[in-house]
Amino acid sequence: MAFLNDHYLKLRAGYLFPEIGRRVAAFCEANPGAAKRIVRCGIGDVTEPLPAAAIQAMHKAVDELGQRETFRGYGPEQGYEFLRSAIAGGYRGRGLDVADDEIFVSDGSKCDCGNILDILGDENRIAMVDPVYPVYVDTNVMAGHTGPANESGAYEGLTYLPCRAENGFVPEIPKEKVDIIYLCFPNNPTGAVASREQLSRWVDYARRNEAIILYDAAYEAYISEPGIPHSIYEIPGARECAIEFCSFSKNGGFTGVRCAFTVLPKSVLAKTRSGESRSLHPLWQRRSSTKFNGVSYPVQRGAEALYSAEGKAQVARLIEHYMGNARILREAVAASGLQIYGGVNAPYLWVRTPDGATSWEIFDRLLTEANIVVTPGSGFGASGEGYFRISAFNSRENAAEAARRIRAIAW
Amino acid sequence: MAFLNDHYLKLRAGYLFPEIGRRVAAFCEANPGAAKRIVRCGIGDVTEPLPAAAIQAMHKAVDELGQRETFRGYGPEQGYEFLRSAIAGGYRGRGLDVADDEIFVSDGSKCDCGNILDILGDENRIAMVDPVYPVYVDTNVMAGHTGPANESGAYEGLTYLPCRAENGFVPEIPKEKVDIIYLCFPNNPTGAVASREQLSRWVDYARRNEAIILYDAAYEAYISEPGIPHSIYEIPGARECAIEFCSFSKNGGFTGVRCAFTVLPKSVLAKTRSGESRSLHPLWQRRSSTKFNGVSYPVQRGAEALYSAEGKAQVARLIEHYMGNARILREAVAASGLQIYGGVNAPYLWVRTPDGATSWEIFDRLLTEANIVVTPGSGFGASGEGYFRISAFNSRENAAEAARRIRAIAW
Repeated sequence: MAFLNDHYLKLRAGYLFPEIGRRVAAFCEANPGAAKRIVRCGIGDVTEPLPAAAIQAMHKAVDELGQRETFRGYGPEQGYEFLRSAIAGGYRGRGLDVADDEIFVSDGSKCDCGNILDILGDENRIAMVDPVYPVYVDTNVMAGHTGPANESGAYEGLTYLPCRAENGFVPEIPKEKVDIIYLCFPNNPTGAVASREQLSRWVDYARRNEAIILYDAAYEAYISEPGIPHSIYEIPGARECAIEFCSFSKNGGFTGVRCAFTVLPKSVLAKTRSGESRSLHPLWQRRSSTKFNGVSYPVQRGAEALYSAEGKAQVARLIEHYMGNARILREAVAASGLQIYGGVNAPYLWVRTPDGATSWEIFDRLLTEANIVVTPGSGFGASGEGYFRISAFNSRENAAEAARRIRAIAW
Repeated sequence: MAFLNDHYLKLRAGYLFPEIGRRVAAFCEANPGAAKRIVRCGIGDVTEPLPAAAIQAMHKAVDELGQRETFRGYGPEQGYEFLRSAIAGGYRGRGLDVADDEIFVSDGSKCDCGNILDILGDENRIAMVDPVYPVYVDTNVMAGHTGPANESGAYEGLTYLPCRAENGFVPEIPKEKVDIIYLCFPNNPTGAVASREQLSRWVDYARRNEAIILYDAAYEAYISEPGIPHSIYEIPGARECAIEFCSFSKNGGFTGVRCAFTVLPKSVLAKTRSGESRSLHPLWQRRSSTKFNGVSYPVQRGAEALYSAEGKAQVARLIEHYMGNARILREAVAASGLQIYGGVNAPYLWVRTPDGATSWEIFDRLLTEANIVVTPGSGFGASGEGYFRISAFNSRENAAEAARRIRAIAW
């Protein structure tokens, strides 16, 4: 009989968002009146319509596909040159040098964060921040890089890097040697950012240990404070050791449109089993040519439009909108006397639960008392216990309503 | 230092289509006059514009994304219900019972044919047709399921199932026991189809050996003869042992739009290392939720439109167009006295090289004497040697011109 991949059986069944969905559904069924009042500040999905520049560009591209003269079939798997060069132009605008052919356009950062493991060896020791975007963990479990999970959900064989208030939610350099390090700033779920000095320490560590940093920059557009790096490549030496994952989901609102990109500099090396150093770039190129067929043409035209003057202005307005929500929610939480983090350079607020309550206790209390859905921090890992996440992705009306209700709670 | 995936180093560098591109470019540079006359019958990419129904549906969906009231963010990773139910309706139209939630909408059959290996164990013995779509082979090499390649390009550890004129290009049941079998009908590159009896033998083999058939049906819309199965599920018992890969690339012309689907019946089982039987369906569901984020919303609306009455009529006209090309090309090749296969239920003609010439010799001769680009059969595997593939994906004008030139050659 054919064998299945046993590693999948190690995955914990209770994934965070389905469990939230289950509790919300149960509450709504028991309280049909309150059900209509629910304000969702849980999942990090955008709510505002696409920028007009992207809409126009996509319409034009769809029309092109309807005419023989302008029809396009298979595109380059790594993305059309028009989009890769627009992206490279974006880096140049920050004074960073990224070649067009070091950019790989894809249908999602989530996909690439998982797929990148394909080109890396199973021998690597993997480190990741905790709390953590579950995809980093689960894709390593699926690839067989871990043992089973313990009761708190931590998998044997992974090195977790705790991020708590005490370290400003930026992990310390580990004592043990690791080969692959997942970092994400601005962070999901904590909303924390890393300073130039903090990132430099990681780049130095990676270069000293010949490790590779997988840097998730999906939320870089939300950085509002000057001096905070938007890209890992702002750190000298990062082109030797870092792969960066970026997305149009959270700046252009492309969560349903699907476009992202990964930057893999040719100078990032890894070793073969026989100890020889090789560039990872041709492996990723080969992977994408073999297991991918490029992003939909109209979608790539939509993404390109985000780099036009109007596109940039429209993206800026979207960010302003969500960060306006974040400000309103921050003020409400602060007025309640709760300890709050994030929400300044990221669309996520990370809030300490009061009086030592667990994350799920506060989740249930907010759901039943205020009919607000948040995300319990423990769902993102052991170090998330004692926190909850409020997402600023919402209409202004909903954010303001959630803020009013938070202020009204007798904590 | 971080390790790379050593298995990638086994991949043969000289992939077929880049080598064709290199030879064509060299010829054009040396013969600038002839360069303008080149007719490309090589790569299997569509040339005709998208069906109007798909264009309309995509415009409407793009407009929805531009309005707050109708905006959609993240969709279900497995595809919107509207599309899954349209696809299930397509199966019902053939009298086949496929549940909506057994259908997984994706951005490409090529992607899924590779990704499916994620949920299967590394212990499986893999069999595949030869000649073969290179993606089946290369993704197995990447996953570490093979040893190195020999001079003819065959990888150690794979079971190749030769398909030649002698067996009607449908492989015989192997003597050794295999766990996973890749089949593709109508076949790329040979254009062959498998009869109900031939497929039944494979389904029986799979059920007897508890093996799994990976059935690539990307070209099913090109079947013109009655009685030929369009889906593996037309064979009794296939729901217990087969996963089917389908695509909108070759019927709706979606090669640049990107939409496909995989059918994984809940009744397909595989065993754990401890010998327990489990359904593969939840593993694939988990994989898609974790490593994928669904297909672009406007694209899914475009695919849905192919199932409308106008959409179906427009798809039928596209198929008619390409099969009209195939007929013209077949007649020309037949008039030249060459032995020809395919081109009746598939958009590919598979032609025996004359006088024992190698595939590449005929490729070069057609390029230099007639300025026609074909695909050398040996590029698809050892059993493709002595054949070449002519693609019918072209404008009528180009197909007719290629036919005229083929008739003019003094073979």
